[in-house]
Amino acid sequence: MSHNTFGHLFRVTTWGESHGPALGCVIDGCPAGLSLTAEDVQVWLDQRRPGQGKFVTQRQEPDAVRILSGVFEDERTGGPVTTGTPISLMIENTDQRSKDYSEIARAFRPGHADWPYFAKYGVRDYRGGGRSSARETAARVAAGAVARKVLDGVTVRGALVQIGPHAVDRDRWDWDQTRENGFWCPDTAMVPVWEEHLETIRKAGSSTGAVVEVEAVGVPAGWGAPLYGKLDAELAAAMMSINAAKGVEIGAGFASAALTGEENADQMRMGNDGIAFQSNKAGGVLGGISSGQPVVVRVAFKPTSSILTPRQTVNEAGEEIELRTKGRHDPCVGIRAVPVVEAMLACVLADAFLRHRGQTGGGAFAPGGDGRR
Amino acid sequence: MSHNTFGHLFRVTTWGESHGPALGCVIDGCPAGLSLTAEDVQVWLDQRRPGQGKFVTQRQEPDAVRILSGVFEDERTGGPVTTGTPISLMIENTDQRSKDYSEIARAFRPGHADWPYFAKYGVRDYRGGGRSSARETAARVAAGAVARKVLDGVTVRGALVQIGPHAVDRDRWDWDQTRENGFWCPDTAMVPVWEEHLETIRKAGSSTGAVVEVEAVGVPAGWGAPLYGKLDAELAAAMMSINAAKGVEIGAGFASAALTGEENADQMRMGNDGIAFQSNKAGGVLGGISSGQPVVVRVAFKPTSSILTPRQTVNEAGEEIELRTKGRHDPCVGIRAVPVVEAMLACVLADAFLRHRGQTGGGAFAPGGDGRR
Amino acid sequence: MSHNTFGHLFRVTTWGESHGPALGCVIDGCPAGLSLTAEDVQVWLDQRRPGQGKFVTQRQEPDAVRILSGVFEDERTGGPVTTGTPISLMIENTDQRSKDYSEIARAFRPGHADWPYFAKYGVRDYRGGGRSSARETAARVAAGAVARKVLDGVTVRGALVQIGPHAVDRDRWDWDQTRENGFWCPDTAMVPVWEEHLETIRKAGSSTGAVVEVEAVGVPAGWGAPLYGKLDAELAAAMMSINAAKGVEIGAGFASAALTGEENADQMRMGNDGIAFQSNKAGGVLGGISSGQPVVVRVAFKPTSSILTPRQTVNEAGEEIELRTKGRHDPCVGIRAVPVVEAMLACVLADAFLRHRGQTGGGAFAPGGDGRR
Amino acid sequence: MSHNTFGHLFRVTTWGESHGPALGCVIDGCPAGLSLTAEDVQVWLDQRRPGQGKFVTQRQEPDAVRILSGVFEDERTGGPVTTGTPISLMIENTDQRSKDYSEIARAFRPGHADWPYFAKYGVRDYRGGGRSSARETAARVAAGAVARKVLDGVTVRGALVQIGPHAVDRDRWDWDQTRENGFWCPDTAMVPVWEEHLETIRKAGSSTGAVVEVEAVGVPAGWGAPLYGKLDAELAAAMMSINAAKGVEIGAGFASAALTGEENADQMRMGNDGIAFQSNKAGGVLGGISSGQPVVVRVAFKPTSSILTPRQTVNEAGEEIELRTKGRHDPCVGIRAVPVVEAMLACVLADAFLRHRGQTGGGAFAPGGDGRR
Repeated sequence: MSHNTFGHLFRVTTWGESHGPALGCVIDGCPAGLSLTAEDVQVWLDQRRPGQGKFVTQRQEPDAVRILSGVFEDERTGGPVTTGTPISLMIENTDQRSKDYSEIARAFRPGHADWPYFAKYGVRDYRGGGRSSARETAARVAAGAVARKVLDGVTVRGALVQIGPHAVDRDRWDWDQTRENGFWCPDTAMVPVWEEHLETIRKAGSSTGAVVEVEAVGVPAGWGAPLYGKLDAELAAAMMSINAAKGVEIGAGFASAALTGEENADQMRMGNDGIAFQSNKAGGVLGGISSGQPVVVRVAFKPTSSILTPRQTVNEAGEEIELRTKGRHDPCVGIRAVPVVEAMLACVLADAFLRHRGQTGGGAFAPGGDGRR
Repeated sequence: MSHNTFGHLFRVTTWGESHGPALGCVIDGCPAGLSLTAEDVQVWLDQRRPGQGKFVTQRQEPDAVRILSGVFEDERTGGPVTTGTPISLMIENTDQRSKDYSEIARAFRPGHADWPYFAKYGVRDYRGGGRSSARETAARVAAGAVARKVLDGVTVRGALVQIGPHAVDRDRWDWDQTRENGFWCPDTAMVPVWEEHLETIRKAGSSTGAVVEVEAVGVPAGWGAPLYGKLDAELAAAMMSINAAKGVEIGAGFASAALTGEENADQMRMGNDGIAFQSNKAGGVLGGISSGQPVVVRVAFKPTSSILTPRQTVNEAGEEIELRTKGRHDPCVGIRAVPVVEAMLACVLADAFLRHRGQTGGGAFAPGGDGRR
Repeated sequence: MSHNTFGHLFRVTTWGESHGPALGCVIDGCPAGLSLTAEDVQVWLDQRRPGQGKFVTQRQEPDAVRILSGVFEDERTGGPVTTGTPISLMIENTDQRSKDYSEIARAFRPGHADWPYFAKYGVRDYRGGGRSSARETAARVAAGAVARKVLDGVTVRGALVQIGPHAVDRDRWDWDQTRENGFWCPDTAMVPVWEEHLETIRKAGSSTGAVVEVEAVGVPAGWGAPLYGKLDAELAAAMMSINAAKGVEIGAGFASAALTGEENADQMRMGNDGIAFQSNKAGGVLGGISSGQPVVVRVAFKPTSSILTPRQTVNEAGEEIELRTKGRHDPCVGIRAVPVVEAMLACVLADAFLRHRGQTGGGAFAPGGDGRR
Repeated sequence: MSHNTFGHLFRVTTWGESHGPALGCVIDGCPAGLSLTAEDVQVWLDQRRPGQGKFVTQRQEPDAVRILSGVFEDERTGGPVTTGTPISLMIENTDQRSKDYSEIARAFRPGHADWPYFAKYGVRDYRGGGRSSARETAARVAAGAVARKVLDGVTVRGALVQIGPHAVDRDRWDWDQTRENGFWCPDTAMVPVWEEHLETIRKAGSSTGAVVEVEAVGVPAGWGAPLYGKLDAELAAAMMSINAAKGVEIGAGFASAALTGEENADQMRMGNDGIAFQSNKAGGVLGGISSGQPVVVRVAFKPTSSILTPRQTVNEAGEEIELRTKGRHDPCVGIRAVPVVEAMLACVLADAFLRHRGQTGGGAFAPGGDGRR
């Protein structure tokens, strides 16, 4: 994690501003020989793409990705494969609507990055939020598409579990439903509640926060490492690096503070495929290392600060002003965050896999085994 | 963050196991010329030291720190100062009580790192938890003491805000009280409630989780950087790297999911010292960069899994067994975590300060200024 | 230095293959507020551009650079400036001549990266050398152009000092001449010797090695750091990362092995601007830290292995074959390496400057000073 | 490479000053399950140990190493093995002779790090060179001993090939001789020449430079990676980070500048064990990746600047003075550098091996194979 790069062996560097000519990422350290086409990436970008409903920004971007390097179509392989060299992905911006930014060019929108960017750099690309725009997350999703290729046998999937005060009922959880509604909602009974809530929010020109939950199924025991490279520490950084994220928790998370040791410690029995845990309060990570259970992460997103209600603020000249944010914005950025959180989980796991393989050779010791991998 | 090192310019590497001869850390990149004695470090270690009450482990360790390098007593400076070279700090273990570990040597304690360490490495130092022991946090506190020297003008302080289901009343918050009771509790009315709760827990041989809150006052606007080096991303990783941490949030954190944009966006007025925010839902970080407000972080700790109740588990031979954890343990590891969380906040901020100074020269632009730092 | 990224605070990531659609770099951590246009970068790229003489490859590439991010044209600044966010630079490949690669697609050219790329990755982009092509150095030169902006007051310049067995006479050294001949040669008397040598080499379908020397004038004392981040260690890695580089030396370099301590240790007197060294055997670096003298580095380049003489080799099928390399190639890659070596020196120094400023605030203590910066 | 740490997966952090209480290193990322005792490290430290002849410093240090963490003696394994956690090694300084440093405390010795350390930090531990002392190399050798454990099947060995103007005759090269004389000299006929040369140097209170050559035999094809993580770039940085190193070359190195393409490109035939190269001008590295040939590196060391001849210099007060260096010093630091250069080669290769295994799984494709590893 250093400014605009994350990962150690599977490394992702992103670049681009909301209203610049393009944005993209460079993925370094990817294993060679993985089949990879632009379509493989596009399918995930299409899931994140805005402009697909009245509860997300109306900006229309095709988000068409180009692969500029790192892939080679060898006639013997029957299709393009990764070569082990940097994979450069680029998405051109096409709908940077020309508009008058004079009102916000020198004002600091409350709850936005305007003020700290100015304080730090003295200059900022105020068009559409510049580098702090949610458009940057397209690059994350593109990188995540490549990470999924690395994670053979691992399923990464996400859901929206709370919008405003309305949380899903976990007893009604159905993963199959998450792709069926526009909200990644696993609880069909909650969908009309969210629709009504968002309609109220949208009409009021307001916005609302949300909570995303992702899990990775099929992660073997052994990924991650003590102590500052703990798998959960890497996940926390990756998730908190997403725009508008304000909290991250693993497994039982903050709820574990109210548990007793008896409730919290997941008991173990032997199953057909090795250890069978009786519960997953740990969220698949113990001591910073994956346990073989599903890795479960939740991320809280604040409501976007781009609202129609006039708010008190100041400008670069040090004058107190009132400001309301016009333009195309999401009433709930959390909805579009689901594919982004999935992508970050995939990237962190791909990196953890390669690092684990580097230090240990890649296998895991098993209970009842012969002491060999 | 790479295995046992964190930080970029102010870098901390820790080493040591619970029952090895010693533990310690190497701090690299510290500015030169800072006054630093072993006593400067010891005062913070003494705050973390176990064996100071019936609700913490009874292991008695003096935790006496030695400075092995990086400090030079120049007669002209009138005392030892940092030289800019690596500062090596060592704490000898003295109370590694010799005991019979045969019961747990080959068993995986539920909720512990035993199993994933074995799965990854095939060997583990099972004595007292080895590397995953909370003793490692002494090295963090030592590093934090040096980080505080770097953070001239910044106050870092922490409190315990929840034990089990009992959270403090924020209306009764009094920072002065946190050092007055054994719980770092800012709400004196809560102290007897916690005492009773912990006594029940302790007698039952059980344990309980907790939530720690820390803040840094005096951090100027401009520290941190988009996007994967966001200050909050670095904080999230640092906090989640602490033993038993399961959740991290900044400012309003998970509660922000239930807020509207109007409630969440902190409005700004001009004060005597620049921008005066009307609230701090952001927790002092916007767009990954400090805003000038106090940086506020909360960390959830799970209950320790070392409990007296027999639990179902398995061993290295793949046999299903029952196990109860004997030995000296904390009913609530969250209590001793307060100085640790403070230390991690200090280390991350020291690093952010140096990186900010590197890229920008260190100053900040001000509203109403002349466009110069 | 990790695969395709180098630098710590001023970080450069490059991507692209010889015959892919484009190549480029992402520069992260650049200070904000620096004036930067595509023309500022183009002027340096034009110096490296091939196709400008009979002794360099005949591939015709305009090497037109585009700035895709990290720069913003603020009306108040009167022109585009860096914003502190990642600067993405892209150069499209336009002259990837379509040709028949069947002869080398499965053969390992002697002295080329063909074999180890295959051994490592199992697949390689054999068109024009793929990632190992000298075309990648365009991205380095582009990054160097930005680094020069950071290095206010520092002059970086290079010369070719040896081609084949013919070294320049240092007594005839004239920096003004280096831009006057096509060889970056500081010794005009050597130019006809090199011309004749290269003509012979070219007609024979052979190639020759060379040595480049660069210096940076105006580097203040204090940049760099012990011990693994020594300025000379960073320079050595940066230079050796260039295609075809086989040796790096600082100051007297290998010649210092034959010196006595008396000859080698540069004596010091007080000059008008601080310390005046009587010689510069150290090449401007002592103990890994700049001394205030010019930083002097020499890099040896091997002859390109793309020659017309048939050579013994093997192919992927494990068959022994003979191969001669056709195509457009440089008889002396060292000539075009001069702007590349300059660029790498600039990038390493920019990074060293920012890191120095991070740890120390940026100033230097002076002899005779008051003990303050 | 960041200040006092090097490596990516196999990471070494060193600390300590010449006259502090101790020095040491922390090795992070080492694979688990490797047999490791203090004796395994001591045997290599003893080779570096000064005080073993009249041509090396007379400081008498036992250099007894202690393993403080990262190793666990499991009764089942029959001896201590690495656990995958940080290995902390410490060597106490015992012969820091108390002396009067007043003469050099404020003077800058020519050719020493005194001046740039002062310029950068404003304070320096002048006792025995502080952090810039050759004593730090003991920590490198200790780390190298662990790296050798990782490099199963790889032989790392070094020789001194030049002292002052006297280079060995490569036709008389005999590896068995290097351990037989006190000079690591592979050419017995050269030993008396060096002895006479050094005796002259020693009597004159002077010093001389030297060149060390190391090779690693048994490195498979595939280690390293384009482009900034090239194996030779990592080696260059590692070698140049050693005290007094001024030049690094791989294979033919600087001599390759005078070669033709025909002479330089190592031809290939098929041998019993895969590719058989007809020469090794490349020094075992092509395109930044190992070729399967021996990796060959040469490092030039300058003469130590600690000489008895009075030299012109200045002091902190800005006064011009004359200074001659008293104390225990090496007439030729290059002699003791052989085990250090070996250790750095071992550390870089261990890291390259783990990174290669991380990205690729560890195997290599072979000519004539079935396209699988």
